[in-house]
Amino acid sequence: MASERIGHHCAVFGIVGHEAAAYQTYLGLYSLQHRGQESAGIVTADGERTRIHRGMGLVDDVFGPEVLDRLPGRSAIGHTRYSTTGASMQANIQPIRVNVRDGTLAVAHNGNLTNSRPLRARMAAEGAIFQTTTDTETILHLAARSQAELLEDRIVEALAEVRGAYSLLFLSEDKLVAVRDPRGFRPLCLGELDGAHLIASESCAFDILGGRYVREIEPGEMIVFTDGTMTTRRLPPAPQTNPCVFEFVYFSRPDSRIYGEKVDKVRRRLGKRLAAEHPAEADIVISVPDSSNTAALGFAQASGLRFEISLIRNHYVGRTFIQPGQSRRDFDVRVKFNAVEGVIKGKRLVVVDDSIVRGTTSRKLVRMLREAGAREIHLRISSPPVANPCYYGVDIPTHAELIANRMSVEEIREYLEVDSLGYLSLEGLLAAAGEVSPVCDACFSGNYPVPLEKLED
Amino acid sequence: MASERIGHHCAVFGIVGHEAAAYQTYLGLYSLQHRGQESAGIVTADGERTRIHRGMGLVDDVFGPEVLDRLPGRSAIGHTRYSTTGASMQANIQPIRVNVRDGTLAVAHNGNLTNSRPLRARMAAEGAIFQTTTDTETILHLAARSQAELLEDRIVEALAEVRGAYSLLFLSEDKLVAVRDPRGFRPLCLGELDGAHLIASESCAFDILGGRYVREIEPGEMIVFTDGTMTTRRLPPAPQTNPCVFEFVYFSRPDSRIYGEKVDKVRRRLGKRLAAEHPAEADIVISVPDSSNTAALGFAQASGLRFEISLIRNHYVGRTFIQPGQSRRDFDVRVKFNAVEGVIKGKRLVVVDDSIVRGTTSRKLVRMLREAGAREIHLRISSPPVANPCYYGVDIPTHAELIANRMSVEEIREYLEVDSLGYLSLEGLLAAAGEVSPVCDACFSGNYPVPLEKLED
Amino acid sequence: MASERIGHHCAVFGIVGHEAAAYQTYLGLYSLQHRGQESAGIVTADGERTRIHRGMGLVDDVFGPEVLDRLPGRSAIGHTRYSTTGASMQANIQPIRVNVRDGTLAVAHNGNLTNSRPLRARMAAEGAIFQTTTDTETILHLAARSQAELLEDRIVEALAEVRGAYSLLFLSEDKLVAVRDPRGFRPLCLGELDGAHLIASESCAFDILGGRYVREIEPGEMIVFTDGTMTTRRLPPAPQTNPCVFEFVYFSRPDSRIYGEKVDKVRRRLGKRLAAEHPAEADIVISVPDSSNTAALGFAQASGLRFEISLIRNHYVGRTFIQPGQSRRDFDVRVKFNAVEGVIKGKRLVVVDDSIVRGTTSRKLVRMLREAGAREIHLRISSPPVANPCYYGVDIPTHAELIANRMSVEEIREYLEVDSLGYLSLEGLLAAAGEVSPVCDACFSGNYPVPLEKLED
Amino acid sequence: MASERIGHHCAVFGIVGHEAAAYQTYLGLYSLQHRGQESAGIVTADGERTRIHRGMGLVDDVFGPEVLDRLPGRSAIGHTRYSTTGASMQANIQPIRVNVRDGTLAVAHNGNLTNSRPLRARMAAEGAIFQTTTDTETILHLAARSQAELLEDRIVEALAEVRGAYSLLFLSEDKLVAVRDPRGFRPLCLGELDGAHLIASESCAFDILGGRYVREIEPGEMIVFTDGTMTTRRLPPAPQTNPCVFEFVYFSRPDSRIYGEKVDKVRRRLGKRLAAEHPAEADIVISVPDSSNTAALGFAQASGLRFEISLIRNHYVGRTFIQPGQSRRDFDVRVKFNAVEGVIKGKRLVVVDDSIVRGTTSRKLVRMLREAGAREIHLRISSPPVANPCYYGVDIPTHAELIANRMSVEEIREYLEVDSLGYLSLEGLLAAAGEVSPVCDACFSGNYPVPLEKLED
Repeated sequence: MASERIGHHCAVFGIVGHEAAAYQTYLGLYSLQHRGQESAGIVTADGERTRIHRGMGLVDDVFGPEVLDRLPGRSAIGHTRYSTTGASMQANIQPIRVNVRDGTLAVAHNGNLTNSRPLRARMAAEGAIFQTTTDTETILHLAARSQAELLEDRIVEALAEVRGAYSLLFLSEDKLVAVRDPRGFRPLCLGELDGAHLIASESCAFDILGGRYVREIEPGEMIVFTDGTMTTRRLPPAPQTNPCVFEFVYFSRPDSRIYGEKVDKVRRRLGKRLAAEHPAEADIVISVPDSSNTAALGFAQASGLRFEISLIRNHYVGRTFIQPGQSRRDFDVRVKFNAVEGVIKGKRLVVVDDSIVRGTTSRKLVRMLREAGAREIHLRISSPPVANPCYYGVDIPTHAELIANRMSVEEIREYLEVDSLGYLSLEGLLAAAGEVSPVCDACFSGNYPVPLEKLED
Repeated sequence: MASERIGHHCAVFGIVGHEAAAYQTYLGLYSLQHRGQESAGIVTADGERTRIHRGMGLVDDVFGPEVLDRLPGRSAIGHTRYSTTGASMQANIQPIRVNVRDGTLAVAHNGNLTNSRPLRARMAAEGAIFQTTTDTETILHLAARSQAELLEDRIVEALAEVRGAYSLLFLSEDKLVAVRDPRGFRPLCLGELDGAHLIASESCAFDILGGRYVREIEPGEMIVFTDGTMTTRRLPPAPQTNPCVFEFVYFSRPDSRIYGEKVDKVRRRLGKRLAAEHPAEADIVISVPDSSNTAALGFAQASGLRFEISLIRNHYVGRTFIQPGQSRRDFDVRVKFNAVEGVIKGKRLVVVDDSIVRGTTSRKLVRMLREAGAREIHLRISSPPVANPCYYGVDIPTHAELIANRMSVEEIREYLEVDSLGYLSLEGLLAAAGEVSPVCDACFSGNYPVPLEKLED
Repeated sequence: MASERIGHHCAVFGIVGHEAAAYQTYLGLYSLQHRGQESAGIVTADGERTRIHRGMGLVDDVFGPEVLDRLPGRSAIGHTRYSTTGASMQANIQPIRVNVRDGTLAVAHNGNLTNSRPLRARMAAEGAIFQTTTDTETILHLAARSQAELLEDRIVEALAEVRGAYSLLFLSEDKLVAVRDPRGFRPLCLGELDGAHLIASESCAFDILGGRYVREIEPGEMIVFTDGTMTTRRLPPAPQTNPCVFEFVYFSRPDSRIYGEKVDKVRRRLGKRLAAEHPAEADIVISVPDSSNTAALGFAQASGLRFEISLIRNHYVGRTFIQPGQSRRDFDVRVKFNAVEGVIKGKRLVVVDDSIVRGTTSRKLVRMLREAGAREIHLRISSPPVANPCYYGVDIPTHAELIANRMSVEEIREYLEVDSLGYLSLEGLLAAAGEVSPVCDACFSGNYPVPLEKLED
Repeated sequence: MASERIGHHCAVFGIVGHEAAAYQTYLGLYSLQHRGQESAGIVTADGERTRIHRGMGLVDDVFGPEVLDRLPGRSAIGHTRYSTTGASMQANIQPIRVNVRDGTLAVAHNGNLTNSRPLRARMAAEGAIFQTTTDTETILHLAARSQAELLEDRIVEALAEVRGAYSLLFLSEDKLVAVRDPRGFRPLCLGELDGAHLIASESCAFDILGGRYVREIEPGEMIVFTDGTMTTRRLPPAPQTNPCVFEFVYFSRPDSRIYGEKVDKVRRRLGKRLAAEHPAEADIVISVPDSSNTAALGFAQASGLRFEISLIRNHYVGRTFIQPGQSRRDFDVRVKFNAVEGVIKGKRLVVVDDSIVRGTTSRKLVRMLREAGAREIHLRISSPPVANPCYYGVDIPTHAELIANRMSVEEIREYLEVDSLGYLSLEGLLAAAGEVSPVCDACFSGNYPVPLEKLED
């Protein structure tokens, strides 16, 4: 399953023209928490100055009533970051805010640049100093160096130099700028709440506020908001657009719209196609909750098999730790899931999962189902084998760790000890994505729309 | 839904004869977190002394590796407490540990005594001092006053004076005593792990450890464990046993066994009977996740309607707060759930929920489903109307707050603005409980097996 | 010096009839912080109920504006506790508050009972349970067992059974009772602020509030305060009174009055008598700051030698820790003090200190002064050799650790490597104490006014 | 008194070639805590990489054993910052560490630049972005922009552009550079410990480690340390040197050497000269502890009057707060000091203080002494009237707040309600400073050695 090792990337949220901007941003981030649990931050602007609060932890850990009271202003941007390890995490929390020549400038970024290292090296050679190790700071440096007068022009100049994936929100004392890279790698959508403009990585953030989904911000589109106006301009177009297809498979919430499509609908199609490509003689269909629920329902519907819930997910999964000396055997799976013996015993199961990364967790899950009495296990994966790293903002293990690089499908089946194993084909995936086409499917296909630029060493 | 206002009661966990007793207790409590999120505590014993650690918050907030390292010993008891409001919460955290004449004595309690107040008043009049406002401390006082030599005899003498519901774990320097009241109001079961004995409120706590379910501890049964031996004795029997039937409806996890029954199985029967009693012309069956999932699956199966997932639950629900001035309209429901429009739009829905308490949250949920485009809503409740408070350890709102005391079923239907409303009958509930009979159904029927003894004022 | 190892005991503070009772108690405790740095607590009463807040740490760590806002009421008692080591420190924080038959009862205690263990054993045998390991809880048990109607009568009955040292403040919903043991071991004085009554261990707590010192509460005196009235009664008298003379030597602040005497005045007399008993050929007189300043000034004045400040005390001494592997040589002294070379170099010094406990710190201090260039060091101690433990509330090392039990004065002189060493005689000390007579001088003389009652084993 | 409102500036500490570099820096900062209580930070280098830890609070709050364990390396620099108010305090904590083209660079700064704003504006216009609002970051930007190869050359180039006061410590992966501005505004001295080099704002930091004072680093001197070598070079000389004379009056600890002089000695001379310039008919001399102790001893010695301690300072002064509605009358003084009535009553006092800033606190202190019974109060100030702000790193209130700008000496005397008032003359101050000449005395004289460069608006 993707939750095993694929890092949720990040989420951004913005609002313009609401008297409780910080509070709405807090709620918006809260609904986007599934995209990043490591840290959270909000910057607000009141026309005169900006204010910031950031911290490690969940949105609820970082923000409380007193903190939000200290963040007045009618505009705000927010960010949640995915969990990672590393020394200087504190400095890398977003939004980043810096002092530039005519005030402050803050930015929240979802995505990853492919030419950050050479850009950074060039600017450092000229004397730039960097506070963080993020590629996002590179964008701020470029914008600060622009001699253009208007913030939006500086941003356009800066973005002319960068390559890769970015859904960005900029905030100055009196302006909010939202922009999505010309390939449209990551989602970004526009909403509305009582006359205020909303921007978010996924539309579920509008729902929690009682707001309204308006539309996806298009690849290469930049929208400049002030409290009174909203104007759109375009970055130079890319040869084609490439929204990340893995958002449909795993990242986005099923109740969100991204790229103009309802995630739930696409994900259900994944399940149906999977059933068509890899039918199974079985008694029931179960999912690995919660990310595979919708695909499993689609599989069940297409196959005519009964959908069942037989893995109970622990809702309080937190920082549970392993005691040294404690055998790890299956422990991490048992902490997250428990099998309902009454449903499984003696049954032939279709188990639908979104993906297989390293395979170790899937193997443990299979063992748990066997111990609960499953007679046969037919594992169905609602995406093709993950075989390549992502350069556009998703944390995928290295080549060597990905099981699909080391084993054939039959070998994986043997390793997992399942009776049959079926991955959705790339064609099936693309067909399910429907009108969102072309997409970025590099993690499956290895076809990278934008190459990673490294430093000449 | 029960989560609206019915307080989860508490959970207890105990282990005897394991070298990592504190760690296993931590994991056990973690899997029982759904029964209490307010506080957690562990007491360990190493034959010579006991050690304690307790705190407000989730199990993961209270315990970490350093804390567990300071809790050596091969025996342990633990407790999680449900969320409540009140001034002196700190002192009421369990287990409670006190100094008695020959050492220390700790206790963890799930349940509620019905004669605590007169007992307490009598002892206070004689000069006893109380540190907490819990009825559990009353039991400790009674045990301390016994002049019997053996701990188990003192406990028997103490329990001879108390009435009501108790699943109790006692721990002294060298003994663990587990006991369940003669009516058997609350569950308590016995397990085994690598030769160590386990005791828990629900069997899912054994699964997380990789342990084995042995059997339910019987009503009126007391088991005395030392590191080497395990002996059973009996409290004087009650006229009949009365395990709480609401455990099947809502409290217990579906993957647990309680009262010797698999919860999942009973809960599925609730759904099936509900479908038989209150069929509906509809397109799909959805549940209010996660507590109603199993009953909804049962309803779907019996009715032949398709089961769908169309309410997405936010996994990060924490201490989310309302900003003063923020309209509350539907806010609390939107923070917990979001409706998947694509599934709902234009559909006739059967919505299965476990119960209706005050009705306000259900009403908001219905409104959310309407806004997502539901054509018809047929609400089905997998238990009878909740009309009476519980004296045996469950926190149910007062008479006046319970909607079933103020309105007829038809009035409730109108208030909730649903097209039809059907509650499972009491007979249906009892039939689903099957061999667990008789039960305590006082919250539905008002038939209290043991009356509440108040103080003469 | 006494700060080397003699534990400051504790302080109590109380107030009746002030609208900001909690806040005044906070300030009072703050000025009594020198008597206890481990923990602090306040209980308030508003006529209807009591409220409590306690915590580990300095008064400023435990109390802030929000905490005090949650402690309404016109009466309050507070306590600060000295630093100690031990497992269950948390539970031992004072004041202790318990539930008794007609409400709550809180107590703050300075002193130590000599018959706590047998009393406790007797009550435990009868079934009493204890939450703490303090002797103070024993008093609460005795009071709770009294069948008298009035709180003050219950306290009188309780105190009839206890022996030893106690300056006590009791607080119920509507009454504050202050009482000092018949021997008067520990100080307790009465003050006034804008019509409110104040009670404190030392009068410096009145000064910080802008209050007025009224008088010492007499040995065996009990004062019962309600918001409107103040009545006095007497415990049965002791054969004689024995206020602790070490308060004059070290514990109390020089700006306080205790036992009706100004501490500064008595301490200055100690220095003058010391100069008379042990004159020295020297250039300057210096003190070990700050506890010996006043005695050193007295010595300087009587001897005609110039007083100098040449040890600079670090004001930020906190939890400074030793890194493992770091040589300890003189480290602990260097962290607390630094010698001013310019004053010391080539000089013959009289160094005045309050006492010598184990001698190890004094030895390091002497070495520091030598390194700064002192030509001769004449150490003068403003009290006799400390040779005996205290049973009345002061934490003195064991017999074996006290250097005066292992060495003669000449041997100590050699060990400390000073040119001469002079202790004030017991007669000198008693004479300086003046009208406060008789006193308890057991730590010097071994004459214990009240024996320690142990358990028969 | 200066503590009333004059901000202690900051302290720096560095060490090269010691295996416990972080721990020694912790101790060094601890002894320099009097120069800054707001925040503390340490950066270490091990030849390969640098590591940082910083936080708000006292050194003891920010650093503990675990934190120091995470700071390996044989070189380190540290900083403590004075207490201030302001929004973005967190980001301004020093040392500042940034990423530059060939690694990281950290800096700790005591002092203040006079041309930071125009430099910053110029660089911001060219596209530099700033993380802090400190002038210290300006230096880092300049050094990063230098195209020189060696760190020391980059620093020389950077410093060629800045004006004002700086005692700086730079740390890269493998080099530590210490440099003092050509005027030598702030102190910086060199020490030695077991072969390791030490650098500190004051020599008392060497004493706490058991290290040895070597010499003052000279104005305009730069020392480049690597683990193996130490080389000196010179910045272009200033027309004259101007060490801050206020260090002698108030900032430095009396046990320190600064500018090659023992502070204690100079401060004593201040007192003696004060006695000569403003003798008084009085009974005793008292000081406002602790900063005026040494000057008061000098006054006492020169005048032949007896020195007495009669203001007791509370050692636990922390964050004590005023409750709203609480009359402030004298409160802030009473929290810090208490008068010893026995010493003062009926006496004619000479009170020696280091300075008068706004006069409000002095006025309260005088009132406290009157209430304790002082017959006459002759206030003597060991420096001239403070009449001008400081541009070189000291936080002095604005012109309008300084009492010396609004009143004549006679008017101040009347306002303070003292019987006589005498300030040391500027000549007297300079004479006491002795061989340290010329100095910066701008806060007294208004003669600014280096003007403040503002932005053209």
